[in-house]
Amino acid sequence: MHTPLANIGEFGFIDRIKKQATRKNSSTIKGIGDDAAVLGYEPNEKVLVSTDMLVEKIHFDLSYMPLKHLGYKAVAVNVSDIAAMNGIPQQITVSLAISNRFSVEALDELYAGIFAACEAYQVDLVGGDTTSSAAGLVISITVIGKAALDKIVYRHMAQPTDILCVTGDLGGAYLGLTLLEREKREFLENPDMQPDIDRFASLIRRQLKPEARLDIIHELAELGIIPTAMIDISDGLASEVLHLCKESGLGAVLFEDKLPIDKETYNVAIEEFKISPTTCALNGGEDYELLFTIKQADFEKIKNHEDISTIGYMQKDTAINLVSRNNQVLPLTAQGWKHF
Amino acid sequence: MHTPLANIGEFGFIDRIKKQATRKNSSTIKGIGDDAAVLGYEPNEKVLVSTDMLVEKIHFDLSYMPLKHLGYKAVAVNVSDIAAMNGIPQQITVSLAISNRFSVEALDELYAGIFAACEAYQVDLVGGDTTSSAAGLVISITVIGKAALDKIVYRHMAQPTDILCVTGDLGGAYLGLTLLEREKREFLENPDMQPDIDRFASLIRRQLKPEARLDIIHELAELGIIPTAMIDISDGLASEVLHLCKESGLGAVLFEDKLPIDKETYNVAIEEFKISPTTCALNGGEDYELLFTIKQADFEKIKNHEDISTIGYMQKDTAINLVSRNNQVLPLTAQGWKHF
Repeated sequence: MHTPLANIGEFGFIDRIKKQATRKNSSTIKGIGDDAAVLGYEPNEKVLVSTDMLVEKIHFDLSYMPLKHLGYKAVAVNVSDIAAMNGIPQQITVSLAISNRFSVEALDELYAGIFAACEAYQVDLVGGDTTSSAAGLVISITVIGKAALDKIVYRHMAQPTDILCVTGDLGGAYLGLTLLEREKREFLENPDMQPDIDRFASLIRRQLKPEARLDIIHELAELGIIPTAMIDISDGLASEVLHLCKESGLGAVLFEDKLPIDKETYNVAIEEFKISPTTCALNGGEDYELLFTIKQADFEKIKNHEDISTIGYMQKDTAINLVSRNNQVLPLTAQGWKHF
Repeated sequence: MHTPLANIGEFGFIDRIKKQATRKNSSTIKGIGDDAAVLGYEPNEKVLVSTDMLVEKIHFDLSYMPLKHLGYKAVAVNVSDIAAMNGIPQQITVSLAISNRFSVEALDELYAGIFAACEAYQVDLVGGDTTSSAAGLVISITVIGKAALDKIVYRHMAQPTDILCVTGDLGGAYLGLTLLEREKREFLENPDMQPDIDRFASLIRRQLKPEARLDIIHELAELGIIPTAMIDISDGLASEVLHLCKESGLGAVLFEDKLPIDKETYNVAIEEFKISPTTCALNGGEDYELLFTIKQADFEKIKNHEDISTIGYMQKDTAINLVSRNNQVLPLTAQGWKHF
């Protein structure tokens, strides 16, 4: 099926989306269908808002990114920003610029992913804008969340001796992307070749369908922990540690042997690409894990948590160092991020 | 000056913007600089959210759209959506996809317009995302506003006999665009030609720098009027009347001789383009005036208002008719909007 978008028109398209946008949150008073959505929060709760834009050929490559995964990921990366404030996402708006090469079915695929993420993170789609583009797909999502004022976690409140924690494991999304790019290159050189990606399925999934760690936000609340500072890992651990340190006016010490690296990440880094797993963990972006600091007093509550690693501590000295496996002290630097 | 964006990088760019983003609203608790902005509203106030995306070559042509005006307009069209809910805008987020042909100075121009609109409408810039694009400029803005729950005006609450009102005058933005396109065409055919746009400055301004009618929202509040239904005129009066009627399950009667058409709009339509001024008023988009309905009892309060015209009334019969100057009754149709 390839139904041109012109066949259903803008309003047909909005009706289609509106029908699928079921309400999950009582703070959604009015969703899609007027000039603006109407939201409402309890007096002691604050409203959080964040926005992320994904651009074809810059952030994703449709030759290996299924549209459904793209829709899911676009929501997840936004939800991750609300999680990084210790907040709970409530609503999203989705704006799309699409060229007319997309069919109705393709958009349905994209929205299937968006709605799957809305289910997974219990957020309501409340509005958006859909327009054509001269070339390429652009997705801009804004997420609105809530948090009690005294539970909001900023980047700048870390204290000396606070423990640096990270969720999950790192470097997987970067290796997933590297694998996909290798397969694409090989496929272009030899179209008869069968893609060899099934055996790396879990790493590829880390790239194509990352999860926001909203589960950890709920668990921290249950454990009675409010992090002193928090950020999500989109550009790579090193870059995010530098952010936390800069904003808090502190330094940090990280231990290489404490970095959470999955066995598959470790093996693929070494065997397939001959790169250091530590480099992948420090500088590979898009893991969307959470990096946060907690008071020493809270250490007992998380020390046995399967999915939280303690990787170092904050210090008054503004040096930011990595202690390597052989006990060398190296300054931590971020590869940095250059989009332009 | 042409400083490549790469020279200042993403963080240099964010710092630059953050410095200019002064706080205007106490509901802005934390603006730019963390994973999300933090907003707060009084318990009896609700949060409104709307989003609009502008795409180069679809919504604007940089060959005649100055970047500063583009920035202003991008904010104004979003503010207009909050006004159309009878709300007061408070914050915006701005996401940009820009190609590397843009310089730092070009972005400064764009943001000069964005900040000018932030001043004009008293909104706070609280976040956003800036990324590169493979081709073309995309601006996605989300606006967040507030309104008391019992003062929010939807599209679906118009009642039979309610009076249809429109602010300002109509058709100017469409003629402004038509003039700009003519000048561009002539310039491309004969580059030595001097553009002849100064004598049409006010119409061109309607296209390049439209204003959201937030002033009317404040005035309606002072007059003690809560419209029964409201929508902003982005696609053209006819299209918006059809929306109000459909959502409210009603019909309407409009009077051609009541349509507010400025003298310059009238003259340029006839003399320059030989088109009907009524057609411009009904189907020309982008005026960003407000279309709303009020109870008959409120008529006295607005009948002498210089900037509000009463153009017809709502009726139970679902027919939507225009009574022409020579008393013919014609069904009102919208040219419709086809982006794809």
